[in-house]
Amino acid sequence: MQLSERQEKILELVKKSSPMTGEQIASQLNLNRATLRPDLTILTMAGVLEARPRVGYFYNGNAGPSPIAQRFRQLRVGDFKSIAAAVKESVSIYDAVVSMFTNNVGSLIVINDERELKGMVSCKDILKASLGNMDLHGMPISVIMTRMPNIIMAASDESVLEAARKLVQHQIDTLPVVESYINEGGRESFEVVGRFTKTNVTSLFVELGQDKFPNTAKWF
Amino acid sequence: MQLSERQEKILELVKKSSPMTGEQIASQLNLNRATLRPDLTILTMAGVLEARPRVGYFYNGNAGPSPIAQRFRQLRVGDFKSIAAAVKESVSIYDAVVSMFTNNVGSLIVINDERELKGMVSCKDILKASLGNMDLHGMPISVIMTRMPNIIMAASDESVLEAARKLVQHQIDTLPVVESYINEGGRESFEVVGRFTKTNVTSLFVELGQDKFPNTAKWF
Repeated sequence: MQLSERQEKILELVKKSSPMTGEQIASQLNLNRATLRPDLTILTMAGVLEARPRVGYFYNGNAGPSPIAQRFRQLRVGDFKSIAAAVKESVSIYDAVVSMFTNNVGSLIVINDERELKGMVSCKDILKASLGNMDLHGMPISVIMTRMPNIIMAASDESVLEAARKLVQHQIDTLPVVESYINEGGRESFEVVGRFTKTNVTSLFVELGQDKFPNTAKWF
Repeated sequence: MQLSERQEKILELVKKSSPMTGEQIASQLNLNRATLRPDLTILTMAGVLEARPRVGYFYNGNAGPSPIAQRFRQLRVGDFKSIAAAVKESVSIYDAVVSMFTNNVGSLIVINDERELKGMVSCKDILKASLGNMDLHGMPISVIMTRMPNIIMAASDESVLEAARKLVQHQIDTLPVVESYINEGGRESFEVVGRFTKTNVTSLFVELGQDKFPNTAKWF
């Protein structure tokens, strides 16, 4: 919703001195009260102004997040995640590279036989190992991976906004999406159920920008 | 803006049979015309309904893009791009790797002495070369780069939505941001002025979600 010039003027007035009655606003703008009514209704229903009976209009400067922010907070990782590109911790570095190319991903999630998250490995981790003349066929991927508990994760019911914030803040491309459970030893473990990446965020950005969710996003 | 239950009902009615007068809508909902007026005003000003004098209300199913889509189309690549992480085409593959690590990027833009775009190289391109036992110190990066004209580019005045669409469609992480010019030989060339990546899109997503542009994004 784009505010009209008159609505912007009303906002400015009420920002300066709250509360103001409809009459006061009208007289400042040299308009009659009836002319202003639709504008005041719009501004109140949009949450920009707050109307208190017998007091007047307040500027709602601390109104919650904007609709776009609300929307980003409502979207859940679980609805936009990709299938996990995962390898077992015992595979060789070389086989992990092959998996990286065949799955067309930039990072791999490393798991054990129970699909429990053990680590992450990036293209650059492998490049370093390769330049360091490691035995790529003989060494397991677990030797060069970043290990738990130093892995940033996401949950399916987390907002995409929070997950995107983690990706930016920690300068990583991929979050393993996990479900937490207590394993037989009584320790908290994380089962890998997917991955959430900057590619997912970019795709979502494009879809939102192209009105792909018309029923919910159209009338922000 | 969230539609109220009554506003949703009005929309449903007008979707089914346009045009409808205010009186007709009111009688269908067993309300009087005055009660409905604010709702009809809201829906009209939000562009969901179109009011034609002496005819009635139409459902504006083909109303342009939603505000969120409009917003994404207004934001320009030039305002969100990063500094180009570029290497000269004559540097060795090994030196390119060093540059990739020191610049903390996943892809490098390859240029000539005039900053003209010559190619792109990814971490995976280099990993392939390394696994193929290439002489990384002796070979120039130009041997393994993807060459012009096979490079997907962005312009500074392009919308971030269009650039994000290119990233998704072509399954790439980085777009070189370029300015086109005619070089001395009369050929169109592209000077590199920055890079636009999935990281930029993700950061923008987070900023929009956190209301970082309050003046323009707050009252969508």
